[in-house]
Amino acid sequence: MEEQLSNRLRNKSLLARVVTADTAAAWIKDGMTLGLSGFTRAGDAKAVPTALVSRAKTAPLKVNVYTGASLGSDIDKLMAEAGIVAKRLPFQADPTMRQKINQGEILFVDQHLSHTAEWIRSGVLDPIDFAIVEAVSISEDGLLYPTTSVGNSAIFVQEAKEIIVEINLAQPLSLEGVHDIYQLTPMGRRDPIPLTRIDQRIGVKGIPVDLNKIRGIVITNAADSPSTIVPPDEETAQMADHLIRFLREEVSRGRLSNQLAPLQSGIGSVANAVLHGLLHSEFTDLEIYSEVLQDAVFELLDAGKVRFASGCSITLSAEKMQAVFSQFERYRQRILLRPQEISNHPELIRRLGLIAINTALEVDLYGNVNSTHILGSRMMNGIGGSGDFARNSRLSIFVTKSIAKGGKISSIVPFVAHVDHTEHDVDVIVTEQGYADLRGLAPTERPLVIIERCAHPMYRQQLREYYEEALQYGGQTPHLLHKAFSFHLNYAQNGTMLSTATADLN
Amino acid sequence: MEEQLSNRLRNKSLLARVVTADTAAAWIKDGMTLGLSGFTRAGDAKAVPTALVSRAKTAPLKVNVYTGASLGSDIDKLMAEAGIVAKRLPFQADPTMRQKINQGEILFVDQHLSHTAEWIRSGVLDPIDFAIVEAVSISEDGLLYPTTSVGNSAIFVQEAKEIIVEINLAQPLSLEGVHDIYQLTPMGRRDPIPLTRIDQRIGVKGIPVDLNKIRGIVITNAADSPSTIVPPDEETAQMADHLIRFLREEVSRGRLSNQLAPLQSGIGSVANAVLHGLLHSEFTDLEIYSEVLQDAVFELLDAGKVRFASGCSITLSAEKMQAVFSQFERYRQRILLRPQEISNHPELIRRLGLIAINTALEVDLYGNVNSTHILGSRMMNGIGGSGDFARNSRLSIFVTKSIAKGGKISSIVPFVAHVDHTEHDVDVIVTEQGYADLRGLAPTERPLVIIERCAHPMYRQQLREYYEEALQYGGQTPHLLHKAFSFHLNYAQNGTMLSTATADLN
Repeated sequence: MEEQLSNRLRNKSLLARVVTADTAAAWIKDGMTLGLSGFTRAGDAKAVPTALVSRAKTAPLKVNVYTGASLGSDIDKLMAEAGIVAKRLPFQADPTMRQKINQGEILFVDQHLSHTAEWIRSGVLDPIDFAIVEAVSISEDGLLYPTTSVGNSAIFVQEAKEIIVEINLAQPLSLEGVHDIYQLTPMGRRDPIPLTRIDQRIGVKGIPVDLNKIRGIVITNAADSPSTIVPPDEETAQMADHLIRFLREEVSRGRLSNQLAPLQSGIGSVANAVLHGLLHSEFTDLEIYSEVLQDAVFELLDAGKVRFASGCSITLSAEKMQAVFSQFERYRQRILLRPQEISNHPELIRRLGLIAINTALEVDLYGNVNSTHILGSRMMNGIGGSGDFARNSRLSIFVTKSIAKGGKISSIVPFVAHVDHTEHDVDVIVTEQGYADLRGLAPTERPLVIIERCAHPMYRQQLREYYEEALQYGGQTPHLLHKAFSFHLNYAQNGTMLSTATADLN
Repeated sequence: MEEQLSNRLRNKSLLARVVTADTAAAWIKDGMTLGLSGFTRAGDAKAVPTALVSRAKTAPLKVNVYTGASLGSDIDKLMAEAGIVAKRLPFQADPTMRQKINQGEILFVDQHLSHTAEWIRSGVLDPIDFAIVEAVSISEDGLLYPTTSVGNSAIFVQEAKEIIVEINLAQPLSLEGVHDIYQLTPMGRRDPIPLTRIDQRIGVKGIPVDLNKIRGIVITNAADSPSTIVPPDEETAQMADHLIRFLREEVSRGRLSNQLAPLQSGIGSVANAVLHGLLHSEFTDLEIYSEVLQDAVFELLDAGKVRFASGCSITLSAEKMQAVFSQFERYRQRILLRPQEISNHPELIRRLGLIAINTALEVDLYGNVNSTHILGSRMMNGIGGSGDFARNSRLSIFVTKSIAKGGKISSIVPFVAHVDHTEHDVDVIVTEQGYADLRGLAPTERPLVIIERCAHPMYRQQLREYYEEALQYGGQTPHLLHKAFSFHLNYAQNGTMLSTATADLN
């Protein structure tokens, strides 16, 4: 163990600070604000938050919890059940926490993932009392090497009053060198970010840390939670085909080369499956500049379809995790992990001209997208980075299956019950039915395109009827406000968005 | 005349291309796409579009019209009345054109003002047949000096198949040198934009033009249309006071210095009046990095409050226009005009850390903003640059009077009938009642802050009732979808948003 640790804690002064998770958890006081490493289940601090939950059983406390994005290891679940979270940001994806959020027991700030670091740096958010971050090692001169995600760890470490490091022996030392940490100076006193190629290193290989701020080090040995994505299915394969057809059309019009442009793909099964579909496309030498590197990215790397991938975390299924980390040397030269404010930075997204592919919960007739709220009120997960990318990319594509719950829900509705991405930021909609290219279309040119190409046939007539009636009243964006949410209200009352009249016809 | 022209057309080969507006208009064929100079009534091509309208009386035609933003000289009105516009983008502000748009006779693509140039460059939009741009002069080696706006003229001139230049003798030659033209290369093959200070020159003083593409030159002599802003009133003065109070609080918390941060202010009377209010503040050495330089900017420059102002157009009231242009040398060293994709560029907005102040039409209980659509369907003007700034700035502030039409309309509503700026992009709301700082607040923390600080007292109870009822059903963002648009529907039916119950109480 000691020998193993000397590899991991190369500054000998740190050995004396190794403590148990319980000891570290005891330092955390009621009312504190914590900055936890972790982005989409990857690289999260595992032991101290768990110990904190145990501690809360005897001495109740409430803390604010900031992270990169969602956590694994049931941390969000355990914290939610224990009732220790006052405010949570910027993203979560745990069913129990979701429930507590929707019951009003946890205050959830659903934030663009590139914004948290700016808010911390500029003092908008509460100061961070403890950064609790997972690392593979700490160098002698104070570089902290993150594990499978960078997320917001750099800003947490920089700004927190004190730091607790979890050295995770289950995370291979070969992760060292895969990170590129570039830290921004305050807005208004900032140089251009020098990145012009997705494979470019612009920073240092670890997070510079003031060793004096490290109060304790906890040794752990547990893998990340595997991702929960489901494999591609027939419908996601159709969606991938439509996307490829669209991209092929862009190439034929001279707007893209056969290398396309750097791709961003949102978290989740659908986006992963769509990306997976590129395996069988004619496009070559692809580049990924994304948030999360999921299974499909490694499949594309393996197949030689993708030449390089930049992200801020690696989130894999159990099977893929085993395959990737057992031969990580194969990938080390072809991936980079960056802080999430760099992976999601508006400056870089625009400069690189990304093709952004994100998942919609529902889309309306004019191209507005809801990514987060079920029936307008209940939070699903959060907007995540989708807004960062959709807002500033070259091409903003949203993918969704046209129906959910066996047809009881249409993903195409007259008026989305919550807007995360406005019509100004949505270029292309893809469902298993087809794709709708909305670029350059005025609002009244969009509904029929969306209905005929993307809506499920069982809902087309109902959508047409809404639009045709609205059109009689005119306007740039014709709507009937008294019927705008009729689909949602029908679902709430009758368990289906399908109107009785239409249901009779089917 | 000839002598005057030799100052204006310094390349002698161009003198032979001087034609009448009618001659130039005759070159424009049915179905063509035109790129017109002009941004918020400033620097618009005046003669050729007018001649085109006359011509259309005998030979009907339809053209697509792209501009910087809104035009003056009644051009949009005349074109709309003549029925010659097929598609119009990215912004307009003319009552007649608005009517034709809402009647479905003109297709209007309401676009972020920084996006048009990217779409033209990357071939998403129809190619431009004619760029028709106003200039003060053309240098011997082919630099076209714009007049009072740059807008999209640089990209129009670069990409158009042919160019018609209007040399406007009424625009003083002293405008030469006030422009800074930086042109972007395609996304993905682009260096960082080197601008790090608002007063920095990064480009050349005029638009580089291929002289061979200039088909004709029309000589004109007419001032820009004056702006239609109304002077500050008691309520806008109160709004300015609240904004200053908010900014003072930011300074006292150490988030801003007494110089604040570069300010952007939207077009229109309210934003102008709020900016005007800074005249009487303690803040000094202010910087402006905005789209339109309106009256207030020059008042602040005169008062020594603003040290430098960068924009993409100068739009002034008749009185101010006279004062500014008769002594333009006073301002020349303290202002710069840039292309709108540079004034509104996400990279620069974030790097400079702008404080963005834009006008809302209505705001909802959770901070979503409608900037464009009356009752959800009818277009007012367009989103303009507000989204460019709100999306990427340091601080995104929206200002609006709390009521309109003598109280028949509340600007604070349960659910905005159109979303231009989502809750993720709205930091602070200011009305004459006060300000609501939404940063770091979860959705359920926002309604009472917005109601108590920003809503008009006559609507507070009605808003509270909606929220309290919604809260019973829970959720991250509690809503009652069957009542979400109750304010709007009440207005549509009864001419007021005030509910009968509440009206009885008042």
